[in-house]
Amino acid sequence: MRVAVDVMGGDHGPGVVIGGLQMALRSGFRPERVYLVGRRQEIEQKLREHDVESGALEIVHASEVLTMEDRPVQALRRKPDCSILRAMELVAEGRADAVISMGNTGGIFAAATLKLGRLPGVDRGAIAAVIPTPERAFVLVDAGANIECKPLHLVQYAVMGSVYAREVLRASSPRVGLMNVGREDGKGNELTQEAFRLLRRTSLNFVGNVEGHDLFEDRVDVVVCDGFVGNVILKTCESLALAMFGMLKRELSRNLRRRLGAILAGNAFRTLRRRLDPEAYGGAPLLGFRGTVMKVHGSARERAWCSALLITAQTLQHHVRDQIAQQIAEANAVLENRSAASASTLP
Amino acid sequence: MRVAVDVMGGDHGPGVVIGGLQMALRSGFRPERVYLVGRRQEIEQKLREHDVESGALEIVHASEVLTMEDRPVQALRRKPDCSILRAMELVAEGRADAVISMGNTGGIFAAATLKLGRLPGVDRGAIAAVIPTPERAFVLVDAGANIECKPLHLVQYAVMGSVYAREVLRASSPRVGLMNVGREDGKGNELTQEAFRLLRRTSLNFVGNVEGHDLFEDRVDVVVCDGFVGNVILKTCESLALAMFGMLKRELSRNLRRRLGAILAGNAFRTLRRRLDPEAYGGAPLLGFRGTVMKVHGSARERAWCSALLITAQTLQHHVRDQIAQQIAEANAVLENRSAASASTLP
Repeated sequence: MRVAVDVMGGDHGPGVVIGGLQMALRSGFRPERVYLVGRRQEIEQKLREHDVESGALEIVHASEVLTMEDRPVQALRRKPDCSILRAMELVAEGRADAVISMGNTGGIFAAATLKLGRLPGVDRGAIAAVIPTPERAFVLVDAGANIECKPLHLVQYAVMGSVYAREVLRASSPRVGLMNVGREDGKGNELTQEAFRLLRRTSLNFVGNVEGHDLFEDRVDVVVCDGFVGNVILKTCESLALAMFGMLKRELSRNLRRRLGAILAGNAFRTLRRRLDPEAYGGAPLLGFRGTVMKVHGSARERAWCSALLITAQTLQHHVRDQIAQQIAEANAVLENRSAASASTLP
Repeated sequence: MRVAVDVMGGDHGPGVVIGGLQMALRSGFRPERVYLVGRRQEIEQKLREHDVESGALEIVHASEVLTMEDRPVQALRRKPDCSILRAMELVAEGRADAVISMGNTGGIFAAATLKLGRLPGVDRGAIAAVIPTPERAFVLVDAGANIECKPLHLVQYAVMGSVYAREVLRASSPRVGLMNVGREDGKGNELTQEAFRLLRRTSLNFVGNVEGHDLFEDRVDVVVCDGFVGNVILKTCESLALAMFGMLKRELSRNLRRRLGAILAGNAFRTLRRRLDPEAYGGAPLLGFRGTVMKVHGSARERAWCSALLITAQTLQHHVRDQIAQQIAEANAVLENRSAASASTLP
């Protein structure tokens, strides 16, 4: 496998990417090639600092960076030599199979749309967030790429999320839930009511409507919703979990007795943190494009980068992209009475 | 103040209502009258069991109960003698000022619409959820009453939520945030973009768009959104908080060392639970009706009922209903160039 790594952007700079790469190489990550895309001098310096040695590494210079403040589409036009575009081009040219980046999510999405394009039959690319729960994790699609959606888009998110949950999270027959305001059939707005009818016609393991109460009770492996709702869920969960951990930490350090208790029970807190750590799941895959794309959190450090590299490798080894193309064609055929064959030809 | 308490419904039956009432009476709750609406025999038995003595109590018999499974509007037609309708009638007839119920939320909302009607100028009644955070609580409107909304509805939720936050949560100049997918102006779908423009024209302390990351960081006192998004936020937060508490408990009891640590640090967990306990805020007020209505969680026990009674008393003492009527009239006047005077006359 050949991976294009956009080393620019993020809160901690290229150092964490190189550090994470080193960690991944030591954990069995065996790429044919890793393109390190970004400012050559910075990359060379970090490689020297981390003393990384691998014949697979190749630096691809890009003079510009898409910052978090940039308006993605306009910024990409203004910065043709930015690292995320250069990384996407490596995939578009057939030199790499996947792109990993911790840059501006909107920018990665726009660059993928521009340089890779969508898989045949996919109406909208989507961002999938993997959200940990006490038992396992679920895939939330769409997590914010498409603010306004049609029912068919939600069905396609369900198909793509199912492939990812099965191949990467190892849910054998992923349970797909439609995010709604209650479990009963017929709940919701026009979008979810029609999506419900369509989802029932697919061959997915559709378990029906789910509501917020179901998310952390191991009832579902894939949650589909429009990007507005998905973005609200993702950020609300991140915020509440952080607030609870922060508050627990403050309360536990308030006096000697509590501090002693916290030391004795320390492993319990570490287990909790580890189990609910989204970084363990690598990052947020962009689904539906003609290449594998992984978005890493801007605050990611070495460990998160290591896990993103390993998860990306797994995504490639399990042919997630091709399986999505095939299953989207099948779902479209069922829903539109189109011939599956005519839509399943990959470029 | 005169309060109509629907003692039926909920997970634990009339006993918790009577127990909570007793607790409230001992904590300074001084009503002129409390109507206990429901099955007379059950109520009399619970009053005897709890040995409640108060000249203010009066039983109003209602032979039927709206269950959680009922489809609210149809069920209300089928059950004219159900407790929630009888309770609303007491307010409609001017015999009571407020209704408190732990019944089916949709049923309470439908009964309020049917028997009380909306305040002049209010296009949609709303359910406000009070969501605790480490620092304080915020009011989320609408939490699920209206799945599809227009921009003006969101403005009215903002007005109503602000009055509640100021008078009941004591936020002196409530910061109103519009729930969105990012903080920047211009973010979001058609609904939020237009609501943003309208909110800026009001005299509210509108702080702009907020996203999930802002909810638990003390940036906002009132969060407005359509009922679909609000319902998802409310239930997702409840579910995640419960999951984290549950997981912490399991991890802390896994071995002797951890159990000892948990005992030493016990107060820290209790503080956390207490600060994040939605029951401390009484319940979810239904806003915009010609009477004060409070929904208590179906799983509520005595303490939650006690706090719901005290919060309802505060809602009445602070004239929340009349202030909403007045400020809705003002906001409508600003937005529609209508005269505020013509819309502000209460029936």
